[in-house]
Amino acid sequence: MTNGLELDRIVVVLVRARNPNNIGAVARAMHDFGFRTLRLVNDYTVPFETARSAVDASAVMAGATMFASVAEAVADCTLVVGTTAVGERALQHPLHALPAAAEAIRNELAPAGQGGRVAVLFGSEKTGLSNDELSHCNWLLTIPMQQHEDIRHPSMNLGQAVAVCLYELVRQRSAPAETPAPTAALAGEVERMTLLLTEVLEQTGYTKRHPANCEEAQIRRLVLRMSLTASDAPVWTGVLRQVLWKLRQGEDGDD
Amino acid sequence: MTNGLELDRIVVVLVRARNPNNIGAVARAMHDFGFRTLRLVNDYTVPFETARSAVDASAVMAGATMFASVAEAVADCTLVVGTTAVGERALQHPLHALPAAAEAIRNELAPAGQGGRVAVLFGSEKTGLSNDELSHCNWLLTIPMQQHEDIRHPSMNLGQAVAVCLYELVRQRSAPAETPAPTAALAGEVERMTLLLTEVLEQTGYTKRHPANCEEAQIRRLVLRMSLTASDAPVWTGVLRQVLWKLRQGEDGDD
Repeated sequence: MTNGLELDRIVVVLVRARNPNNIGAVARAMHDFGFRTLRLVNDYTVPFETARSAVDASAVMAGATMFASVAEAVADCTLVVGTTAVGERALQHPLHALPAAAEAIRNELAPAGQGGRVAVLFGSEKTGLSNDELSHCNWLLTIPMQQHEDIRHPSMNLGQAVAVCLYELVRQRSAPAETPAPTAALAGEVERMTLLLTEVLEQTGYTKRHPANCEEAQIRRLVLRMSLTASDAPVWTGVLRQVLWKLRQGEDGDD
Repeated sequence: MTNGLELDRIVVVLVRARNPNNIGAVARAMHDFGFRTLRLVNDYTVPFETARSAVDASAVMAGATMFASVAEAVADCTLVVGTTAVGERALQHPLHALPAAAEAIRNELAPAGQGGRVAVLFGSEKTGLSNDELSHCNWLLTIPMQQHEDIRHPSMNLGQAVAVCLYELVRQRSAPAETPAPTAALAGEVERMTLLLTEVLEQTGYTKRHPANCEEAQIRRLVLRMSLTASDAPVWTGVLRQVLWKLRQGEDGDD
């Protein structure tokens, strides 16, 4: 899954989606995660046309195609996966939680250039996939959700469900370079900071007021726990030097 | 993460969200994945009130609270994580891709019953989090997305971004507890430290001498990089208070 090639072999199929905003949100999530092939199954063209003409419609939406039946929409696929909220109906199919399901889908796509297409079906916002629609599926996937006592059939918003599924499919792709950890300050700088802080504690009377905090080793550990970076160390020592300079000015009475 | 307890310690914070539908979608995703604590930061109450009065508003939405500033919204949290689209701006913070970020958040919550709250901040739909808002964050997380040549700044739909992040947080519900890290200081204490340090910099003339180091957000980040623990925070604020007290004494000339 390092280049976009395998992703083009995943086909997102929306069955009887009614809300053009949801269709647009699905297209946008596909674009975000690098998927391109969107198919809609509907006997009613309005949501599709509306989503396609939205001002912020993505390239994915522009390339979306419409089919009259699930059978036609998945005809060129070697694996058809249905999505379902658990407990929605008596399941006749094997069911995998999303992480395992994504792995199985990636395996299907593994023989790059020679494997087939994988269709992932999402049902309508209200009813999900019907038993007839599910009958086209090799197996089902479900997004693990919190069970709430007050609600019998948990289900996710369509755009969010698709986003979560696509995220899981590309989750293990090479992550973007993380920011390198900042260079730590040298021990010598940490010690300089410790000495300066000790002087500040003494000059301000903190040592007298809180002697229990002021053993040399305690102050050193306090400074060590700051995890000073190489660039912050001179800032902090500069701050403490300025404090000492100002305190001396006060003592001379020339302020 | 096997029961709901730890999830209650994760606080989703929407900063300047404008679209009530997006706010509702966020609340719904939280409900789906078992999260409960939603906070909004906005100087404009209409989106919040509209989302709250929507017919399908969830229990999460009903319990949502509104704050006037990021500082107030995260004051009781020990870890503040900002979300960002990579490349959006020159990053001043460590950045983790979502899978690693979720692990770090789970570790923060690992000492069950004794750790603090974790805030996850999401910015406005149009602009994301501002630099000032980001300055409240310990580090940033990004959802790895496909880079498209035609679009400079990829960004996700707010409801989808939140859904994907929450999914990743609960993806491995059997996460083992690692060696407990020391309890981090509350963001409110970090902010107190920032304010006291700012006063010291001003009172000592440091601000005049090194203005380039003294923007509010810079000072806040300097303090955040200290990774203050709950036990060190009062020590450091005590030290700064003593410095300010002593400086005032010098001014009065009674030393």
